[in-house]
Amino acid sequence: MQEIEQVLSFMVEIEKLKDVHRKTKPVGLARYENSAEHSWHVCLSALMLQQYANQPVNIDRVIKMLLIHDLGEIDAGDTIIYATETPENKALELAGIKRVMALLPAGQAEQYIELWLEFEAGASNDAQFAKAIDRVPPLLHNLHGEGHSWKANKVTKEQVFKVNSRIAKGSKPLWELLEEKLQAAIDEGLLK
Amino acid sequence: MQEIEQVLSFMVEIEKLKDVHRKTKPVGLARYENSAEHSWHVCLSALMLQQYANQPVNIDRVIKMLLIHDLGEIDAGDTIIYATETPENKALELAGIKRVMALLPAGQAEQYIELWLEFEAGASNDAQFAKAIDRVPPLLHNLHGEGHSWKANKVTKEQVFKVNSRIAKGSKPLWELLEEKLQAAIDEGLLK
Ligand SMILES: [Ca+2]
Repeated sequence: MQEIEQVLSFMVEIEKLKDVHRKTKPVGLARYENSAEHSWHVCLSALMLQQYANQPVNIDRVIKMLLIHDLGEIDAGDTIIYATETPENKALELAGIKRVMALLPAGQAEQYIELWLEFEAGASNDAQFAKAIDRVPPLLHNLHGEGHSWKANKVTKEQVFKVNSRIAKGSKPLWELLEEKLQAAIDEGLLK
Repeated sequence: MQEIEQVLSFMVEIEKLKDVHRKTKPVGLARYENSAEHSWHVCLSALMLQQYANQPVNIDRVIKMLLIHDLGEIDAGDTIIYATETPENKALELAGIKRVMALLPAGQAEQYIELWLEFEAGASNDAQFAKAIDRVPPLLHNLHGEGHSWKANKVTKEQVFKVNSRIAKGSKPLWELLEEKLQAAIDEGLLK
């Protein structure tokens, strides 16, 4: 009972991710996306895109990675991908996920902190695919939303290609399709 | 490429779940919860509560069920659990999930529609556990939010116990703990 009580505390704590705001707006919505709904979106997207991963992935591990990948933001906040990922911010996120996971019953936290570190390192097949999927929704939001976040944050086409071409490390065909769409966005003047 | 294009259309379409509003507010927030962030919350909650399921569950299937369980609401909207689940509404949700899944490449939809139907039927171990977890967040929102949704929707303690005691079908110890908390809420006058 004591242990379930701890999980309920965790469930209440992670509610805070619903109030961490990202830098793009969901397609068709006037408000910014939050990191909780984003996490759901990438989990379901990864599930449906699994057959396009460059290397075989364990989709169940990928989904677990994506379920927890943003929990460090409860303490650290969301950072736009085009900003430099500072060691300070990464340290804040690691401390944040450790704090949140420590709410769980003894022995549960470690495996998820390891999974989070694996995601952050981006070296394993699962992490490369998870990271690729994580990059897609902001592109879709901009492509279907008049490049609102590119414009608001003065993001250039060079930055967009440089940062997002890493999608190819997880899924080449996915990046090829997105590259075409980004090229079309440049032609239309959405991205400069 | 054509197939990935179809998955991207699916990814854009399911964005709409971020605009389906539920009947409770996340802990600490002044706004109502949406079904996308709720879906994330129950997936992660199920993961952390898996060892308290009455029967052995396949947590990876449970998580997939919970990732998709509300997609029918894009067309049907969210219904409060205390309202009678009408056959009309269930038919709308089924048509809705079929429409959304039909956006995926050929051959992908069927397995997820089956999984959704399994969740709805609530008969398998996985579905009973998933349904139990799905019921917990609105209770936490009310318990940590002055019973706001119980009050706004004139929900009685008899209704709360009747509907939520079904949590015990998925996890007896989880329901026992929640029952204590609900009893305390009655004692405090939050629930009448
Ligand atoms: Ca629902």
